[in-house]
Amino acid sequence: MPSARQGGKRPLHARPSPPEAATSRSHSIFRTIAYVTSNFGLGLAAAMLIPALVDVADQNEDWRVFVGCSLLVGMVCILLATATRGERPKFTQRLGFQLVTSVWLFATLIGALPIYIASVNVTFAGAIFESMSGLTTTGSTVISGLDALPRGLLLWRSLLQWLGGIGIIGMVLLVLPSLRAGGLALFHMESSDKSDKVLPRVNQLTGGLIAAYTVLTILCTAAYTSLGMSFFDAVNHAMTTMATGGYSTHDASMGYFESNGILVAATLFMILAALPFVIYIRAFLPRRFQLWRDPQIAVFLMTCLVLSFAIAVTRRVVNDTPFGEALISSAFNLVSVITTTGFASEDYTLWSNAAIGLFFLATFLGGCAGSTSGGIKANRLVILYRLVRSSFRRLVRPHAIIRLKYGNDDISSETIQTVTIFFFLFFGTLLLGTVLLTMFGLDLITAFSGTLTAIANVGPGFGQIIGPAGNFASLPDPALWTLSVVMLLGRLELVTVLILLFPSVWTD
Amino acid sequence: MPSARQGGKRPLHARPSPPEAATSRSHSIFRTIAYVTSNFGLGLAAAMLIPALVDVADQNEDWRVFVGCSLLVGMVCILLATATRGERPKFTQRLGFQLVTSVWLFATLIGALPIYIASVNVTFAGAIFESMSGLTTTGSTVISGLDALPRGLLLWRSLLQWLGGIGIIGMVLLVLPSLRAGGLALFHMESSDKSDKVLPRVNQLTGGLIAAYTVLTILCTAAYTSLGMSFFDAVNHAMTTMATGGYSTHDASMGYFESNGILVAATLFMILAALPFVIYIRAFLPRRFQLWRDPQIAVFLMTCLVLSFAIAVTRRVVNDTPFGEALISSAFNLVSVITTTGFASEDYTLWSNAAIGLFFLATFLGGCAGSTSGGIKANRLVILYRLVRSSFRRLVRPHAIIRLKYGNDDISSETIQTVTIFFFLFFGTLLLGTVLLTMFGLDLITAFSGTLTAIANVGPGFGQIIGPAGNFASLPDPALWTLSVVMLLGRLELVTVLILLFPSVWTD
Repeated sequence: MPSARQGGKRPLHARPSPPEAATSRSHSIFRTIAYVTSNFGLGLAAAMLIPALVDVADQNEDWRVFVGCSLLVGMVCILLATATRGERPKFTQRLGFQLVTSVWLFATLIGALPIYIASVNVTFAGAIFESMSGLTTTGSTVISGLDALPRGLLLWRSLLQWLGGIGIIGMVLLVLPSLRAGGLALFHMESSDKSDKVLPRVNQLTGGLIAAYTVLTILCTAAYTSLGMSFFDAVNHAMTTMATGGYSTHDASMGYFESNGILVAATLFMILAALPFVIYIRAFLPRRFQLWRDPQIAVFLMTCLVLSFAIAVTRRVVNDTPFGEALISSAFNLVSVITTTGFASEDYTLWSNAAIGLFFLATFLGGCAGSTSGGIKANRLVILYRLVRSSFRRLVRPHAIIRLKYGNDDISSETIQTVTIFFFLFFGTLLLGTVLLTMFGLDLITAFSGTLTAIANVGPGFGQIIGPAGNFASLPDPALWTLSVVMLLGRLELVTVLILLFPSVWTD
Repeated sequence: MPSARQGGKRPLHARPSPPEAATSRSHSIFRTIAYVTSNFGLGLAAAMLIPALVDVADQNEDWRVFVGCSLLVGMVCILLATATRGERPKFTQRLGFQLVTSVWLFATLIGALPIYIASVNVTFAGAIFESMSGLTTTGSTVISGLDALPRGLLLWRSLLQWLGGIGIIGMVLLVLPSLRAGGLALFHMESSDKSDKVLPRVNQLTGGLIAAYTVLTILCTAAYTSLGMSFFDAVNHAMTTMATGGYSTHDASMGYFESNGILVAATLFMILAALPFVIYIRAFLPRRFQLWRDPQIAVFLMTCLVLSFAIAVTRRVVNDTPFGEALISSAFNLVSVITTTGFASEDYTLWSNAAIGLFFLATFLGGCAGSTSGGIKANRLVILYRLVRSSFRRLVRPHAIIRLKYGNDDISSETIQTVTIFFFLFFGTLLLGTVLLTMFGLDLITAFSGTLTAIANVGPGFGQIIGPAGNFASLPDPALWTLSVVMLLGRLELVTVLILLFPSVWTD
């Protein structure tokens, strides 16, 4: 096989390696993974002290859980980091995939510890599910009775989502320079835009994006507080809004506040969270403002507008809801699904079958690449639509030369392949996940919409059990494990995780 | 725009056209479409005399309907054909699309006439749906009480499916030489195989394939008769088996016969009908037998085997059904769905959620390209899988040269684009069709599985209403119109129909 032969050849600039090089390299990969993940673990151990403080202030015994977990995780991570410190292997695309997936898995385990140990009745699978749902900014939950939960645990859930949002913005950016063809759409478009060297250094860019994320979270907190939320609720909901996560401190989600003002503010900030974050720091640079150059933004905003109106119209027609009132709650719940946040103000599946159909469609779409949003995402839809249009044009005019453009860039055949692979893996995972869940006894609508909401990192599904008024508590443990894996796959854009199933990724 | 400028240029070998050329060319296109479709209409008018004869023999008054429709259609078509006879425009890819879609639409209208007029209680939308479901070899029906129906009408439904099967095999082949990049997978692989000029002339190939189709139908009739079916039932079911259509003469479908022998025979012939038909005529040629060279065949057969076993195992575990008994009916119903035939021997959605999940997966897959089967089809799955695998390999070994192969052929980037476009249009149509159906009041599971079973040309859906034990009779007319369009889109592989929505296809 030519691939094997070619693969064996080293690039000319590499040093000739002794026979044991492969073993020591793979050894060094595991050391690097252990070192990097334990550093992130230390961060999480420190973060656990925040809910501990809240519980101390509330005189809730759960503070012991957080402090204990923090000490345990901290010590293990310090030992691990010390043991694996040393020279690092060359940074490659492959190592990037290994690091991102390992960090997410390790962080999920750490995040699950206080949930499992604290005074809430969940199995270990449930705790892992809850932690994964947080760190992937999905927002599905196995916990009911949120209103009665200790505030430390509520804050921990929100923190996991907020940190998961930073993770997506920061970490993927760090491995991005080598990720062009890897299928991670995050900042992909921006980074391939060679004529537009906005910020030359990756670290500077990362810092700017995290700052924008933080500032937006503070603004969102201020907006929620001024509209009547308690400070604690405002902080929690602002963090899960900007992460497009959707964890709430109340079982009734945003419906608890019974405030149209809050729904409008949340709609606005969810949209801001689903736009490519790079636009926020571009605005601070001495160049012309390029907000509207990225075609995915217009497509995403138009989709939100059209679908919100469509749902409001169906409610006017089917349910006789006054249009103005219908529009606010339709827009809020629709934007919540399309940005993959997953808040709800009421059970929208009771509105009508037509509304269900539109929410079902919205569950696939997602926001923009380069945001904290999940799903298929508007940039891929733009590319696919333009591919279809150019192919149709070519069939009508076989001799025409038709260029495929995305913004100012040509769409390469490599990009088309990347999008194709994502699309195939997305629907393949969706179908296989559905089959697995039916094997564990779930009905078709719960299995299908559960896998869909997990892979798109949305949150609520459809049907009696996992709809916006339900939760995932009644699902059997194997189903929760399956959905945890699917959430991870969706969050890391499938390829990042699935490629690690190739044994040669680890050994060669 | 560069495309418009380039498109305006004529190829060098074309004669310079006077200004009115575009108008007269578009005029001539409509004449050609009228001429060709009226010729096919004449064929259908002649075919109507067969059910007329059966009704005469049965002394059923419906014979008047068939004879009347035959005369009406025959006269109109003769007039139309005479009026539009004359020189033909040059055959292009575009004209191929226009002809195929027009013929299918015209044939559907003609096929619906006797159903609408005869002694069965359906609306016009229902008659169009029934005719479209026949000619697209889908097999969904709005008629209940099949057992009490006049035999002429039953035979007409089966004939529509059988002729639809010939249509797919014959007509698409005729437009194929120019269809390389058009997304019609039928015989695509064979025709692009330049090193393997099996049958040089298209007409000869078409004749051979129709002969193979006819011979297999006769063999299937013989098998069914020898296993206990009446001759009439055997002919009807053989025609709908080989068309992978699934119309039956009994409400209980194949379950009516209560014969494992018939189920096994049907399973076998459905598989034969879902293999690329070119293998049957290759066998008669003085070359080595190339049955196993086309990778889609092995994938399709393995999928049938694995899923049949999986379903039988779940029934052994969940329902305690003896494995041997479970295997026969599992294989029959599964193969019926995966080949997009749509027969049922019982309501398999009552078996278990796990069985429903596997049948749901099977509804997407389809048989092989180059057969009468619909769905995504095994060849596309092979191409997508190999694309993923090669992309993963490239990520592991960035310097390797990895060639994408399908059988002996390289997979071009044009083929990948074609598959991508199909995949995108397939899921796009599926989701938009679902939304439309929910607008007409259908619940999510009926809307989604109804659109899916229509686009994949399978037949039964899921849920209470359109599951294997139900039918489409209770659906409102707008839903039946929508599903008729979706069946046509699926049967003609989407691009063929959708491209006609471009105005420039008709005017330029």
